[in-house]
Amino acid sequence: MEKKKRIVIALGGNALGNTLPEQMQAVKITARAIVDLIQEGCEVVVAHGNGPQVGMINNAMAALSRENPNQPNTPLSVCVAMSQAYIGYDLQNALREELYNRGIFDMPVATMITQIRVDPEDPAFQSPSKPIGHFMTAEQAKEAEEKYGYVMKEDAGRGYRRVVASPKPVEIIEIGAIRSLVESGQLVIACGGGGIPVTLQGNHLKGASAVIDKDFVSNLLAQELDADFLIILTAVEKVAVNFGKPDEKWIDDMNCDKARQYISEGHFAPGSMLPKVEAAVAFAESGENRTSLITLLEKAKDGILGKTGTRIHQA
Amino acid sequence: MEKKKRIVIALGGNALGNTLPEQMQAVKITARAIVDLIQEGCEVVVAHGNGPQVGMINNAMAALSRENPNQPNTPLSVCVAMSQAYIGYDLQNALREELYNRGIFDMPVATMITQIRVDPEDPAFQSPSKPIGHFMTAEQAKEAEEKYGYVMKEDAGRGYRRVVASPKPVEIIEIGAIRSLVESGQLVIACGGGGIPVTLQGNHLKGASAVIDKDFVSNLLAQELDADFLIILTAVEKVAVNFGKPDEKWIDDMNCDKARQYISEGHFAPGSMLPKVEAAVAFAESGENRTSLITLLEKAKDGILGKTGTRIHQA
Repeated sequence: MEKKKRIVIALGGNALGNTLPEQMQAVKITARAIVDLIQEGCEVVVAHGNGPQVGMINNAMAALSRENPNQPNTPLSVCVAMSQAYIGYDLQNALREELYNRGIFDMPVATMITQIRVDPEDPAFQSPSKPIGHFMTAEQAKEAEEKYGYVMKEDAGRGYRRVVASPKPVEIIEIGAIRSLVESGQLVIACGGGGIPVTLQGNHLKGASAVIDKDFVSNLLAQELDADFLIILTAVEKVAVNFGKPDEKWIDDMNCDKARQYISEGHFAPGSMLPKVEAAVAFAESGENRTSLITLLEKAKDGILGKTGTRIHQA
Repeated sequence: MEKKKRIVIALGGNALGNTLPEQMQAVKITARAIVDLIQEGCEVVVAHGNGPQVGMINNAMAALSRENPNQPNTPLSVCVAMSQAYIGYDLQNALREELYNRGIFDMPVATMITQIRVDPEDPAFQSPSKPIGHFMTAEQAKEAEEKYGYVMKEDAGRGYRRVVASPKPVEIIEIGAIRSLVESGQLVIACGGGGIPVTLQGNHLKGASAVIDKDFVSNLLAQELDADFLIILTAVEKVAVNFGKPDEKWIDDMNCDKARQYISEGHFAPGSMLPKVEAAVAFAESGENRTSLITLLEKAKDGILGKTGTRIHQA
């Protein structure tokens, strides 16, 4: 029997909706696409973002602190942990249901609470840039800075938002558990929300006030699991150069050198396509038989079959 | 080499504190007691309660809904899921740190999001009795009944609290993943808060508005893992008959028949020692070599060594 292709798939937090009812719908669509891959004979590991969800949980915990002075504010790392359960619980049930609906009864689904070690010297900590949570007035922002030590930034005339650091992932603390489950044939959800960011202080893992990019962590996860494919989902079917211009060109395939050239020419928007292409390059570069694929959720299966999406490979 | 004794230990949610700073202290003490057992050569699986924590999370999510009408109220099952991460993240780090402090570097710690199937026909759903969350005025209670369909009960003159059903656990959905990790030598935290209660609707697992008793679920977990010991922690070193009376007698050892006799004579308080003894009996009865132990956290190791605590065995 041919060895199963192992795939790490990185789902966007935004694609999972802004509320629980939205999430419960979104996970159904997600589950269909993932089980499609499984039925193609792939072994799938799922990572996901948590932008709206961790913001919502952070807001809820802050609302509680305002109502009840005995409850100190909850650190962001704990909110990330909670978001892993908030999303994982729904997602794993949708996956289980879809597997059962298709007669696959022998593939358990598991969600792992996952911590990611980051470097306390990561320059990202010096320039927090990732907005989370809701918009505030200038006054509320000032209070948040004074009361909680938040870094607040004015956001395109829409008000102020908290910004946090987005350091690079260095190590997946629970990789052993994830590997055990994957090797035993389980469908694993891990590194949710990019993972809980922690720094090492002696033997202690200390939660960091940061969120880790889910595409970068998915690259690390895919490398650690020696995956064949890293699928990075986005809102377009393929990556484009000269995006939105008359000479726009959709890319089917590029090697890492070409991708780096496009990056240096400024074809990919920071905070949007750029980190996706960077993560894709990092994975493809890490091994000859490792391919990254950037596409739409609904096209993931066709992408694996070589019919669409943008493939990035080493040479 | 002698086969390692496998232990399931059930931690109380109250023992983990009411706030995050309290929890961060409590998990250190807990970790010491658990690593003591590991150094005695035991293989440990950790389950825990979530009374204060799920109440707090439920309150936070309700506070968010009040502030933001776009955020519908969060079901209790989702709050239980979040509490597994809220507690598991801290507990697994404290365990890791304690293991490292003692030079044990080869035992990964993992927290599993765990769902527990309950029977929708469980009579507990007809008489919700377990109080969760904060106290309310009569007015607030009325509003909660009308707005969220909560069942509210007056609690000993201290105000009104939401009460939910506490059905019996029937099946641990993620038992396969838990077993895989335990068999591969990991220290696993599972069934947090008694597990996320779900009922089966066709292929769908639907969250139930309930909390499951952590001692009952620990019994089920211990049986499923074919454990040698179930340790149920409580606030006293041993179980007593005629507790608080002049003829109070501390019990070192009893068989299931004796325990059932004491139960029928009303020696154990409902909602307190009674469910612990019931869970202990259920486990001890399930196999000849299965022993339940009820004691203090700090005495768990001495209990396993036969020096203290109350042991319950089959015959």
